[in-house]
Amino acid sequence: MFKKILIANRGEIALRIIRTCKEMGIKTVAVYSKADEESLHVRFADEAVCIGPAPSNESYLKIPNIIAAAEITNADAIHPGYGFLSENSKFSKICAEHDIKFIGASGDQIDRMGDKASAKSTMIEAGVPTVPGSEGLLKDLDHALETAEEIGYPVMIKATAGGGGKGMRAVWSADEMQKHFESAVQEASAAFGNGGMYMEKLIEEPRHIEIQVIGDQFGKACHLSERDCSVQRRHQKLTEETPSPFMTDKLRQEMGDAAVKAAEYIKYEGAGTVEFLVDKHRNFYFMEMNTRIQVEHPITEQVIDYDLIREQILVAGGVPISGKNYEPKLHSIECRINAEDPYNDFRPSPGKITTLHTPGGHGIRLDTHVYSGYVIPPNYDSMIAKLITTAQTREEAINKMKRALDEFVIEGIKTTIPFHRQLMDHPDYLAGNYTTKFMEDFEMKPMED
Amino acid sequence: MFKKILIANRGEIALRIIRTCKEMGIKTVAVYSKADEESLHVRFADEAVCIGPAPSNESYLKIPNIIAAAEITNADAIHPGYGFLSENSKFSKICAEHDIKFIGASGDQIDRMGDKASAKSTMIEAGVPTVPGSEGLLKDLDHALETAEEIGYPVMIKATAGGGGKGMRAVWSADEMQKHFESAVQEASAAFGNGGMYMEKLIEEPRHIEIQVIGDQFGKACHLSERDCSVQRRHQKLTEETPSPFMTDKLRQEMGDAAVKAAEYIKYEGAGTVEFLVDKHRNFYFMEMNTRIQVEHPITEQVIDYDLIREQILVAGGVPISGKNYEPKLHSIECRINAEDPYNDFRPSPGKITTLHTPGGHGIRLDTHVYSGYVIPPNYDSMIAKLITTAQTREEAINKMKRALDEFVIEGIKTTIPFHRQLMDHPDYLAGNYTTKFMEDFEMKPMED
Repeated sequence: MFKKILIANRGEIALRIIRTCKEMGIKTVAVYSKADEESLHVRFADEAVCIGPAPSNESYLKIPNIIAAAEITNADAIHPGYGFLSENSKFSKICAEHDIKFIGASGDQIDRMGDKASAKSTMIEAGVPTVPGSEGLLKDLDHALETAEEIGYPVMIKATAGGGGKGMRAVWSADEMQKHFESAVQEASAAFGNGGMYMEKLIEEPRHIEIQVIGDQFGKACHLSERDCSVQRRHQKLTEETPSPFMTDKLRQEMGDAAVKAAEYIKYEGAGTVEFLVDKHRNFYFMEMNTRIQVEHPITEQVIDYDLIREQILVAGGVPISGKNYEPKLHSIECRINAEDPYNDFRPSPGKITTLHTPGGHGIRLDTHVYSGYVIPPNYDSMIAKLITTAQTREEAINKMKRALDEFVIEGIKTTIPFHRQLMDHPDYLAGNYTTKFMEDFEMKPMED
Repeated sequence: MFKKILIANRGEIALRIIRTCKEMGIKTVAVYSKADEESLHVRFADEAVCIGPAPSNESYLKIPNIIAAAEITNADAIHPGYGFLSENSKFSKICAEHDIKFIGASGDQIDRMGDKASAKSTMIEAGVPTVPGSEGLLKDLDHALETAEEIGYPVMIKATAGGGGKGMRAVWSADEMQKHFESAVQEASAAFGNGGMYMEKLIEEPRHIEIQVIGDQFGKACHLSERDCSVQRRHQKLTEETPSPFMTDKLRQEMGDAAVKAAEYIKYEGAGTVEFLVDKHRNFYFMEMNTRIQVEHPITEQVIDYDLIREQILVAGGVPISGKNYEPKLHSIECRINAEDPYNDFRPSPGKITTLHTPGGHGIRLDTHVYSGYVIPPNYDSMIAKLITTAQTREEAINKMKRALDEFVIEGIKTTIPFHRQLMDHPDYLAGNYTTKFMEDFEMKPMED
């Protein structure tokens, strides 16, 4: 097993990884930018190396500095966390060249899944369902009608040069096709000087449901069930839960099988997440694969009594996985606490935390790198804590989240705690009745006093 | 179900109960002494009533004040927590007379188990093993020899007026009896003016292992497996774990059956703990029953995914239990963090907490009522936090405890954190090789710098 792991990250995930390393008896090296000198990951690691000034491309993204830090501290492995260099195939390859184990996927695996188009064709080869669509551009109206017939209505026609919804139409039947196709071509030509159109199946009432997988160095993979991450604002996840309120045993088995098939097809090594869109009929379609640990991994850990970071390290050290798939035994919810003002369009709110009181007790997990007196630098992601509640049922986990949010005191900055309080009272959320469109209609109620 | 529960307690257990009530949608009333005005249980309850000055017998033990607080706030139930009035049969009866549900055992049940002698004879009736001994006093040497033959060596002869080890002898064989009996009588006569002696079986290498039970209003009880609480200092538990490293499946089943038998024999209602001494041969003997929730209940909750306070409330509300016994699926350890100086004979160290940083992350639970700036009053128990770690194995739970203790920062007062750090490194503790005598030989190593 590794003797010393360098953590090429900051914030809560750096601390998360250091904690598991300590528990495994593995020494740790923190790297940090000038802006993070007072960070807990620096304090709790066995060694710490400053790798540059605050801007990420001069420190957390600067590969030579990180490799140098690993070499001078004799680290034999690097854990990249999430974000930053975690899905950078070049970094994975450079680690390998320097004989430092990159705890994650190989450069080739990252390359295969990193680009959306190549990931999709790989998944089609693997037999994993992807969103059906035209191959290339639609030649004309007849081609559009033929393709829609093959895919099945409803479909979306989209301008290849498009953006911002321009030249995009939902078409629900053949009768509507002529009208919509012609107006979309016209609109796209006017807007982009390019009337080229392609077609995709329209995903009705889409949910973002992802499957956690882990693969070992021997080509074996297993899945750890799903996470529902449909509550998103501009593609940023706000809260996640497992099991998904939309899940059935049959769907879990099908999606789990597909995710394992995807991972095994590319001989995937490490923890990864296969993200799917699921429509209202419970058809599911591959979206993308995240070849790294995810922010929301703790809810999976909570419901199956598992330590994903530990497993990542073991797998990277050559330990085979058991190959057993895991079913959720409990219900777990994560709320991302961001330094943002939910009453002001979620505008970032960096600054000094003057008072901090954290919730505790039965069924509460808190992953955070902040403390009373900590100054949140403006340079990085605004997430400052992950509050996770776990209980026998969804209703109990929600009630636990409400009381934990009520106990949570962060003063000096604005946070998303008031948003989560309102979310946990929202009738559609309570009913488990939400899609990726949920936040489009969500409005904050007036401020609590 | 109850609409409003008054919590007749303070500190972490008051907060613990308030949390579960909130999660169940039940309103809460805190009561507090003048010394506890700044306590979190006062802040987090829906209502709070001051019931008197700091000394417990003028507030937390003053039944009329508590009943009055329940009546003016229209509370329909009282949760007594642990300590204070939790095992006061008169209080339980007075609650019943005022038509307020006492969440715990009835006055009669408390009476039956409250007195050690009557509890022992009740258990003998129920068929639960108790420590074998002489019936009343030993008449003479021959009687002592006969009794020892019946009980089986080794035995203890003890002065009926004794204390502090005076007039007490361990006797390992009949050959030794004459010498020890005569010298013990002589010593007791000299020390207490009373040479009366009785005999009990000597429990070799005793462990304190207790079984958590819960009984409903329909005479049904079940057990939730064991907790090993052998690490004690002057009968004060310092740390607890489940499963016991000394446990076997067979012993768990036997002890669990005995505990359920004990509870069902007295038609026990509520959560209770049957405490046993277990000798090195895995014989077990009833010691006493705690007719209340215990400090160390969280470790049981952690390994079986259960909320004992919730179950107490449900059972008190007339909900039947499932009757299923529970086996531990994980390993959990609790360290009691006391405001005491382990380098100075565990002398209490009340005062102001100037800095507080609490551990978090995977497998960590913290139950505490303190916060940064909180002033620990000198009037009450010195326990200020319970740090609980849970993992797949004992080794992992210990490693998790070590890293959590390292993260835990409490400044301004002395705490037992350094003691627990040393305990978690002690070879006998690591080997699971400890008895109730463990702390007699334990010495703190010099202070860490």
